[in-house]
Amino acid sequence: MILEKVIREIETVVGRENILTSPEDRWCYAFDATDLAYLPDLVVFPGSAAEVSRILLLANEHRFPVTPRGAGTGRSGGSVPIEGGVVLVLTRLNRILEINTKDLVAVVEPGVILGKLKAAVEEQGLYYPPDPASADFCTIGGNVAECAGGPVAVQYGITRDYVLGLEVALPTGEIIDTGTRTMKGVVGYDLTRLFLGSEGTLGVITRIILRLVAKPAARQTLAAAFGSLKAAAEAVSRILASGLAPTALEFIDRVTLGCIREMLPFAVDLKAAALLLIAVDGHPHDVEERAGAMARFCEEQGARPVIRARTPEEAEQLWKARKVISPALKKVKPQKVSEDVVVPLSAIPDLITALEDLSRRRGLIIPCYGHAGDGNIHVNVLYDRALPGEMEAVEPTVEEIFTLVRRFQGTLSGEHGIGLTKAPYLGMELSPAAIAVQKRLKQAFDPNNIMNPGKIFPQPPKARAREQEGI
Amino acid sequence: MILEKVIREIETVVGRENILTSPEDRWCYAFDATDLAYLPDLVVFPGSAAEVSRILLLANEHRFPVTPRGAGTGRSGGSVPIEGGVVLVLTRLNRILEINTKDLVAVVEPGVILGKLKAAVEEQGLYYPPDPASADFCTIGGNVAECAGGPVAVQYGITRDYVLGLEVALPTGEIIDTGTRTMKGVVGYDLTRLFLGSEGTLGVITRIILRLVAKPAARQTLAAAFGSLKAAAEAVSRILASGLAPTALEFIDRVTLGCIREMLPFAVDLKAAALLLIAVDGHPHDVEERAGAMARFCEEQGARPVIRARTPEEAEQLWKARKVISPALKKVKPQKVSEDVVVPLSAIPDLITALEDLSRRRGLIIPCYGHAGDGNIHVNVLYDRALPGEMEAVEPTVEEIFTLVRRFQGTLSGEHGIGLTKAPYLGMELSPAAIAVQKRLKQAFDPNNIMNPGKIFPQPPKARAREQEGI
Repeated sequence: MILEKVIREIETVVGRENILTSPEDRWCYAFDATDLAYLPDLVVFPGSAAEVSRILLLANEHRFPVTPRGAGTGRSGGSVPIEGGVVLVLTRLNRILEINTKDLVAVVEPGVILGKLKAAVEEQGLYYPPDPASADFCTIGGNVAECAGGPVAVQYGITRDYVLGLEVALPTGEIIDTGTRTMKGVVGYDLTRLFLGSEGTLGVITRIILRLVAKPAARQTLAAAFGSLKAAAEAVSRILASGLAPTALEFIDRVTLGCIREMLPFAVDLKAAALLLIAVDGHPHDVEERAGAMARFCEEQGARPVIRARTPEEAEQLWKARKVISPALKKVKPQKVSEDVVVPLSAIPDLITALEDLSRRRGLIIPCYGHAGDGNIHVNVLYDRALPGEMEAVEPTVEEIFTLVRRFQGTLSGEHGIGLTKAPYLGMELSPAAIAVQKRLKQAFDPNNIMNPGKIFPQPPKARAREQEGI
Repeated sequence: MILEKVIREIETVVGRENILTSPEDRWCYAFDATDLAYLPDLVVFPGSAAEVSRILLLANEHRFPVTPRGAGTGRSGGSVPIEGGVVLVLTRLNRILEINTKDLVAVVEPGVILGKLKAAVEEQGLYYPPDPASADFCTIGGNVAECAGGPVAVQYGITRDYVLGLEVALPTGEIIDTGTRTMKGVVGYDLTRLFLGSEGTLGVITRIILRLVAKPAARQTLAAAFGSLKAAAEAVSRILASGLAPTALEFIDRVTLGCIREMLPFAVDLKAAALLLIAVDGHPHDVEERAGAMARFCEEQGARPVIRARTPEEAEQLWKARKVISPALKKVKPQKVSEDVVVPLSAIPDLITALEDLSRRRGLIIPCYGHAGDGNIHVNVLYDRALPGEMEAVEPTVEEIFTLVRRFQGTLSGEHGIGLTKAPYLGMELSPAAIAVQKRLKQAFDPNNIMNPGKIFPQPPKARAREQEGI
């Protein structure tokens, strides 16, 4: 609990109109895109880095937790205030400060909606590639904090590859600049990339310098239907080894396909076991040629039919269908656990096959889709809380998924982060020594553990017990 | 000094044949590519991560410094043992453990020579892009420790963009794995990128997992001569803004050109004030077209002549000439200080003009060359120790260069690191708060400060005084 006196102090910092105290208001900032919710003691909307800093100083003085939050679209509970305290909502810091077409950089505040940023950049003839499915809602600050990806990562990379520098309010209150405004820079330790994916546990990002690239002159999109899951997965590996260099290479299995079928701009055979969604970027005639080669290659791998989007509108419709998959899966079952494991490229077919087998054995529907082009598969365990036994089967199934992934030398998360939901499994990937040094690192930044406590690292039983309080 | 008893213990770890104790042997490992040299107390060649770990444990117990070293080609004194102790030479760890064409990864030990790795990867039809000028001599471990770049960074990025995971012996002796073997991964703090460019101060890298890409189907190389320095620098900015997407875009000024003129495969007018060296990668007919467009564009910008390499041999000869620039500059003056500043892309012409002016004012020859395509200019201050006044003018000139660069919102180092030579200037780029948190981070990894002490952070007078001992 935060003392009334301290709330008054915070009010002095940000203004009365920028805090929320009533339970009904606070519940609105208790959750993210997982099913977890924890009630914060106070919701604060700071208006500047200086205000953020003053709140962090108060947090150190009075020892309350601070959980930074953008739009709350995260998938691992990263912005859920598991230990109460202040939720620091950064949506007022929503200015695009600069888009510089000569330096190829943008300077933005963390609360800018990604989709707005992408559109503003494209208006200037440039391109900011990362494109998580939540692009229309999520904030760039959240993207940086979780290191978001998206389909075009196959060619263009992820958020990490575009952040040149940051302004950060440290947990101890200092405001520092990290990184550069230049394309390269190796001065001191790479705090910029350390903050990338640090899930709000090392400080509050208050400004971001992004690298921009030239807008691709043309893009073509293809969809290739396969008769078996394995054939599609094997086609993915072969496409990647072929040198055809897709920009995006998405995989959608039969259950997933069923949920978005009516959104597709063309009919897909009901017998199709999987769809590959492929984009190819480049100069117009080069793209034309490569898209043709890609279509022929898919046909050689047994795809029927292979459909090329004929217009930009058709292509957009395809990508829109891809973007709504996550919520659309709720048509099948009311609850789901979404994982975003990654395996080495050659292991994709084996992972897909093993997951089919796991689904049969556990009696759970486990749809898979996602960024096959970089081995990053979204594995969803669907369940219905109301059905006896289903909920209980979820946790051991997730553990078995992670065991499989680790056996294939894979990783637990490609872009969603560890947050809260995967913290209990951290030890499946990191050794005790690796966890210990990460904890020392956290301590070096945040000696009083005020920043987003209870995240990333496996939690003591006390904190775990609070999960029951969630709605 | 290391006690005789401790030397015996180290000998037990690595074997008598893998230590050097005589002064003449130790002097061979006292220096790097700067002019600085400090005599280590002992040179040790470990044969495994376990041996590295045991030496680090001994260092903690007996409090002696350990400085890791590859081939000693660094340009900022990163591997120079400024406080004596052990130089840990990693050249015995020189195995390419795996090149996997399906997963598109390579697993290597730190002592592998970069050029050998690149050749081995290309034999398998793949490509590892980073290509610092020292590629034929430097080790991949040093590349990771300093975050090396090279000409093709404009298209392909730098070492940071290719390291997926590491095995590291921590200063406290634990051996940990960081990162992944997969294309993505966001599990825990990004220790992989934290070690990138950490200059041997946070641990010893004992294994590296690298991402590989498809070998470019074709590359064309052009050279464009300009009549004025400013015209060349402005052409760089215009090429970058044009969307012509060069793979490499190198800048060579008149003095530099004079040093390598006879190595070029064609005659360049003695009146040429600057040369741009440009590479374009891609599919053969696409490259043909783009190289043509690039040549026309350069001509429109006033370049005369623009010469396209007609054969791969001619292209190779051009790039070879580029690679020998650094030692070739010694033809002009016996000593030099090499900086590798980076400025925002639009500031390149202003920086070049300001450096011309600085050279005139200071009466020093300051040749510039390097990776103009990412704003990373190698600025060399030439001098002759024997000439009265020249040596004294160097330090204030360097400081003025950094002042200029900071005024243009640039950074002190793009790929050489801070090491020893730039440590006194760290405060020109990082605020006291940023330096303080970096020191706390160092402390979290290395509580007894045994790893490469005296680097990155400005040194106390004691350590600076030792510089006089250098040869």
